[in-house]
Amino acid sequence: MTEISKDIEQKAEYINSKLKELFSDKPDDGTEDVVKAMEYSSLAGGKRIRPYLVLIVSEVLGGNKYEAERFALAIELIHTYSLIHDDMPCMDNDDYRRGKLTCHKVYGEAAAMLAGDALLTYAFDLVSSDEKISPEKRIKAVEILSKAAGHIGMIGGQIIDLEAENKEITYEQLTYMHSLKTGALIKAACRLGCITAGITSGEVYDAVDVYAEGIGRVFQLVDDLLDVSSTTEVLGKPVHSDEKNQKTTYLSFVSYDMARQIAQLITEKAAESVESIDKDGILHDLAYYLVDRVK
Amino acid sequence: MTEISKDIEQKAEYINSKLKELFSDKPDDGTEDVVKAMEYSSLAGGKRIRPYLVLIVSEVLGGNKYEAERFALAIELIHTYSLIHDDMPCMDNDDYRRGKLTCHKVYGEAAAMLAGDALLTYAFDLVSSDEKISPEKRIKAVEILSKAAGHIGMIGGQIIDLEAENKEITYEQLTYMHSLKTGALIKAACRLGCITAGITSGEVYDAVDVYAEGIGRVFQLVDDLLDVSSTTEVLGKPVHSDEKNQKTTYLSFVSYDMARQIAQLITEKAAESVESIDKDGILHDLAYYLVDRVK
Repeated sequence: MTEISKDIEQKAEYINSKLKELFSDKPDDGTEDVVKAMEYSSLAGGKRIRPYLVLIVSEVLGGNKYEAERFALAIELIHTYSLIHDDMPCMDNDDYRRGKLTCHKVYGEAAAMLAGDALLTYAFDLVSSDEKISPEKRIKAVEILSKAAGHIGMIGGQIIDLEAENKEITYEQLTYMHSLKTGALIKAACRLGCITAGITSGEVYDAVDVYAEGIGRVFQLVDDLLDVSSTTEVLGKPVHSDEKNQKTTYLSFVSYDMARQIAQLITEKAAESVESIDKDGILHDLAYYLVDRVK
Repeated sequence: MTEISKDIEQKAEYINSKLKELFSDKPDDGTEDVVKAMEYSSLAGGKRIRPYLVLIVSEVLGGNKYEAERFALAIELIHTYSLIHDDMPCMDNDDYRRGKLTCHKVYGEAAAMLAGDALLTYAFDLVSSDEKISPEKRIKAVEILSKAAGHIGMIGGQIIDLEAENKEITYEQLTYMHSLKTGALIKAACRLGCITAGITSGEVYDAVDVYAEGIGRVFQLVDDLLDVSSTTEVLGKPVHSDEKNQKTTYLSFVSYDMARQIAQLITEKAAESVESIDKDGILHDLAYYLVDRVK
């Protein structure tokens, strides 16, 4: 196991334990089912890449550890909510995610929708009500999260994706859609890391933005590549699903080899953009870990 | 027309015009459909009671007008999101609200769910990114809104309501459910009004809380009463729907006359609680307006 994959695993475990804590006290006032559904989906696995990014950007910039942890939890709650709603019958209608039944299959559609709503709302509660963090940093975090998750960010990407079904879209539209749907939250994660170090603009902030944009694009590119090159066993989800669903992907425009090459190039540029601050090379290693990942 | 109903109407029109402004610039990047759905539901009418409460509590306490307007908009966006999700087929499955087609009937279920998600998220964006308001006030507003709208507030009430279908619940459970489902946001509206005057705790804050709890309960009580005593023409929605849906209401426990009497008593106490700050009697008048309303 490489250093970076060990670090990712350790921090994912840490995040998992903290997520578990968030839901450890179950209410007994009749609202416990929505909390159980929130907990179920929050603890249903996942790479925890977004919280990981908050933690390492914060680390690299000498940011406040406690703040990084809280912001990391908040962004993962938002990511989880988006998955619950994405899986619903009116959206992707998925019965399984990461080998586990999706939230609405376990708790029913109504409770799943509410659990998603509640996770999104709780993310803002978690950040805003934490008096150990300065009002300035809290409000900046809420702003970053709400813009990235909203209609000018992730939800904007989801609606474009929704309307792109059974429709021809251009390469530009595809990249734009991804920049909103997955890119916005990845960028938000890195920005939150900056906030914990008191950095809200300037050269370092911009460099981190460039890095985030790069790895966000690569993340999606590799997803598209693995869908054709991997196996269901390794990937943990059905392969060739894009072809089956007639989905426009990067491979609708460029060859497999060309897409790999693009992914490598973007990764190099992303790592370069943060070279001057990335003393231990952790951002560099993560970028290469993401482009080389097999699942 | 009484003074209070004139004031409610004027302020509702003001809120409507401001809501319209929020959505006047449509994007042309493929995300416009979610913005249209957000706008459609935001402008589909309604009494605007929650924003009205923000405005008048702020007025009574000499709060900042601009802040009151922004917080009022945010709480109405959250209320609107909750209605969109409530109307969805997996929840109440309503085709019409206030005589207009519900969001999912016009834009489809997926876009409606996303529009709801986006309105909730936008409420936090609107408050958090407004640099004309101090970070302290902004973060307090986000905290109030997220707690009131989340699983310990409105969503908690929705899940209790959901699970109470076809089940016997007690009077205590019914009141508790309402205190979360509608009460929490009404209380939040009044608290936001306090925030605009820099009041975040203490005697006045508590008095306003008592007032909010009272009118919140009365609001629900009167809803239950009108469902049996009004006509579809006056009410603008089908009457006797609670009986038809075998819903537990206040009238499952007390007679019509008794319920009216309870509503009057709570109204009196609510008005009394804020007597010392309510110089022009606007909070008093609103409380009596709500208990005497015929629709």
